[in-house]
Amino acid sequence: MTLPIDPVENLALLIRCPSVTPAEGGALTALANMLKPLGFSIERPVFSDSGTPDIENLYARLSGNGPHLMFAGHTDVVPPGDESAWKHPPFSATIDNGEIYGRGAVDMKGGIACFAAAVARHVAEHGPVKGNISFLITGDEEGPAINGTVKLLEWAKAKGEHWDAAVVGEPTNPERLGDMIKIGRRGSVSGTLVVHGVQGHAAYPHLAENPVRGLVTLVEALLDPALDQGTKDFQPSNLEVTTIDVGNPATNVIPAKATAAFNIRFNDSWTEETIMAEIHNRLDRAAAITKLRPGRETAINYELLWRDRPSPVFLTRDEKLIGTLSASIEAVTGRKPQLSTSGGTSDARFIKDYCPVVEFGLVGQTMHMVDERAALPDLEMLTRIYQRFLADFFG
Amino acid sequence: MTLPIDPVENLALLIRCPSVTPAEGGALTALANMLKPLGFSIERPVFSDSGTPDIENLYARLSGNGPHLMFAGHTDVVPPGDESAWKHPPFSATIDNGEIYGRGAVDMKGGIACFAAAVARHVAEHGPVKGNISFLITGDEEGPAINGTVKLLEWAKAKGEHWDAAVVGEPTNPERLGDMIKIGRRGSVSGTLVVHGVQGHAAYPHLAENPVRGLVTLVEALLDPALDQGTKDFQPSNLEVTTIDVGNPATNVIPAKATAAFNIRFNDSWTEETIMAEIHNRLDRAAAITKLRPGRETAINYELLWRDRPSPVFLTRDEKLIGTLSASIEAVTGRKPQLSTSGGTSDARFIKDYCPVVEFGLVGQTMHMVDERAALPDLEMLTRIYQRFLADFFG
Ligand SMILES: [Zn+2]
Ligand SMILES: [Zn+2]
Repeated sequence: MTLPIDPVENLALLIRCPSVTPAEGGALTALANMLKPLGFSIERPVFSDSGTPDIENLYARLSGNGPHLMFAGHTDVVPPGDESAWKHPPFSATIDNGEIYGRGAVDMKGGIACFAAAVARHVAEHGPVKGNISFLITGDEEGPAINGTVKLLEWAKAKGEHWDAAVVGEPTNPERLGDMIKIGRRGSVSGTLVVHGVQGHAAYPHLAENPVRGLVTLVEALLDPALDQGTKDFQPSNLEVTTIDVGNPATNVIPAKATAAFNIRFNDSWTEETIMAEIHNRLDRAAAITKLRPGRETAINYELLWRDRPSPVFLTRDEKLIGTLSASIEAVTGRKPQLSTSGGTSDARFIKDYCPVVEFGLVGQTMHMVDERAALPDLEMLTRIYQRFLADFFG
Repeated sequence: MTLPIDPVENLALLIRCPSVTPAEGGALTALANMLKPLGFSIERPVFSDSGTPDIENLYARLSGNGPHLMFAGHTDVVPPGDESAWKHPPFSATIDNGEIYGRGAVDMKGGIACFAAAVARHVAEHGPVKGNISFLITGDEEGPAINGTVKLLEWAKAKGEHWDAAVVGEPTNPERLGDMIKIGRRGSVSGTLVVHGVQGHAAYPHLAENPVRGLVTLVEALLDPALDQGTKDFQPSNLEVTTIDVGNPATNVIPAKATAAFNIRFNDSWTEETIMAEIHNRLDRAAAITKLRPGRETAINYELLWRDRPSPVFLTRDEKLIGTLSASIEAVTGRKPQLSTSGGTSDARFIKDYCPVVEFGLVGQTMHMVDERAALPDLEMLTRIYQRFLADFFG
C-alpha cells in the first residue's frame, strides 16, 4: 500500500477525472483512494435541492488526540471551453516543459493534491497525527454553490464536528508561490433595478415616458460618489453595473421598461444591511423629483430587487493561525506573504462562522483559462509549505 | 357601369382585401377597378431589392388639359394583432352603430376610398376634369418603405411625369375631422452607440474597464442640454434613447461592450448634416477625458453608427395649396384646421422633392389599434372636402 506522497501523481489522478460541475467525474473517489491508506474515514454525503442537480461531496476524517484542522476545497472544475484551443487535452494531465496541464490544475485540484501529499509525508515522518485532520471537499463550488460547502458544514456540525482552524486551498498567489495569503474577503451583494415608463412612439414623446432617462439617472446615483476610500484591512468598496437591458428593437418606439443589474464588493466599513440601506437611500433620493425631460418633473418609478444570497464580509483575526502559515511559507520560499483581503468571494465566507480560516494555494494566473497548468516545482513547494504548517500546527 | 361615388362602399371593398405589408391582398386591383370607369389608365409597377420582398404598387392617371394633382397613399396595412380581441373581424368591413370596422379603415384605405369617391362625384357633376389627376399608391408604406413611394416617384418622373401639387391621404386629425392639416414634418435620424471596454471579473475591476460607465456618460451628453427650444413652425427637436443593451447574464462579470440606440426628431433649425454633426460633437466632447472610475482617467472608446436612411425635415410654403385645402375643410366642417408640423414622418417627405405637398385625411385615433374604425359621417364629410378641393383646384 503506497502513500500519496507525490503531489504531481496525486494531481494527475485528479485531473484525469472530468469533474465539470455538477459531475463528480470520479474525482472524489480518486481522493478517497488517496486518503484511505492514511487512515481517514470517508463519508460521501449527497445534497439535493429542487431546481438544482444533486451534488456529491466528501468528508474525510483522521482522528487523533489534539486540535482539529480542516482543509477545505472543491474537486469540481469549470468547463474547458474550446478543447481544440488547448495545447494538451484538458483532462490528460500531460506534463510538458516542467508544467502539468489540465482543467483544475490550479483551481483547485492542485491544492488538494499537495495537501494530501503533505499529510502523507507528515504521517510517514512523524507517525500518527497529534490531532484531527478533516478534508471538507465539495463538488459544487464553481456551480450554484447550494448543495456544497454550506450544507456540508451544517451536516458535519450536526454530527458533532467542530474545528479549531481551517485552510482553504484555493489559488491565492497572483504571480509567484508565496506572494499572498488571503485572510479575509470583501462581501458581495447583487441587485437588479427596474425602471417603469410608458411605452409610446418616438415622434410623440409627450404621450410616453422614456424609462431610459430614469435609469441613467439612477445608475449615476449608484456610481457617484464612491462608496468609501478603503479601510486598514480592505481596499475600497466597489460597485459595477454589470448590465443594462431594454431589448427594444424598434427605432421608433419608446420602451416601457429598462433594467440594470449591479454587483457590489464591500469592505468592513459595511455590513450586508448597511450597504443595502445605502443603495436604497441613493436611489430614493435620485428618484424623488427628477427632471426627466425639459418641462416635465416627476418621480422615477423604480423597483429594486436583491439577487442571490448576499455574501458577508469577513476578516480572520487569528494571529496564531496566520503566523504559523506565514512562517511556513517564508521558511520554504524565502518570501514573506502579503496578508490580503482582495479579490472575489470563496467558500471561506461560509467556514468563518465555524472556525478561523485562511486561504493559501497555488499561483492563480491560468485558472479558468485555456491551458490551465501548474509548475511542478510549485507543487513540490506547496506540499512542503503545507507539511511545515502541519508540523507546526500539531507540534 | 357604376361610378364609385360612395366612400363607404369603396372602403368596404378595400378593407376586405387582407393587404398586410408586403401582401397586395387584392387591394390595388380593387382600387384599379374603381378608377377605370372614371377614365384612369392604370399601371402596376413591381419593385424589388435584395433582402426585401417584391412590392406591388399602382400609378393611375387621368389626363386632361390643366394642372396636375397627385393623390398619394398606401393600401398596405399593419397586422391586425390578436384577431380575437377585435369586436368584428379585422377584414370584414362590418358596419356597427354608424362606424365601419377594419384594419386600414383610417390608415389609410379610408382616405383612398374618399378621394376616389370625390373624383367620381366631380366627374359626374362637371364632366371631364380640367387637368390631370394621378393616384400614386404604394403597398410598402408600413414596411421597410424601400420598394414603395421613393421608387414610384423616380419611376414616374423617368416616364416624364411632373406634378403641380400633392395631397397625402394619411389620417391627420387628432380628434375631429377638420382639426389639422399637416404642412410639414420634422426630420428623423437614428443612431447606435457602442462603447468598448475590457471584460473582467467584478471582484477585480482594476483589471477590467466597465463600458457601462462610459455609455452612461455618453447618454447623458445626448440628453442634456435640450437640442433647441422649437421654431416658429415646429415644436422642439427631441432625442429619445430607445434602447440600451449589454446582455450580460453573469452577476460577477464586467461586460466587454455596451450599446445604446437613439432616435432624433429634428425641426427646421437643423439639417440631417448639422444634427449629425452636433451629436458627433457632443459625444467626442464627453468621451475625450472622463473619470471612468475613482483614480482612473481615460477617453471613452466608442463607435457611432447611423442607422437607416435619415428623413429630412420639410415645410410646405405653398400658400395657395394650403389655402385651397383649408377653405374646403372650413366650408364642409365649419372648422378652421390647424396647420401642423407635429407627429411622425410620412411619405410626404419623399414627395416634397417633386412638388408642394400637404396631408389631410381621417381622424387617426384608432390607427394601428385593435378595432380600427371610421365613422360613416366622417367618410362622407371627407369625400365632400376632397370634392370641394377638386372643384377649387381645377376651377
Ligand atoms: Zn476554486
Ligand atoms: Zn399610413
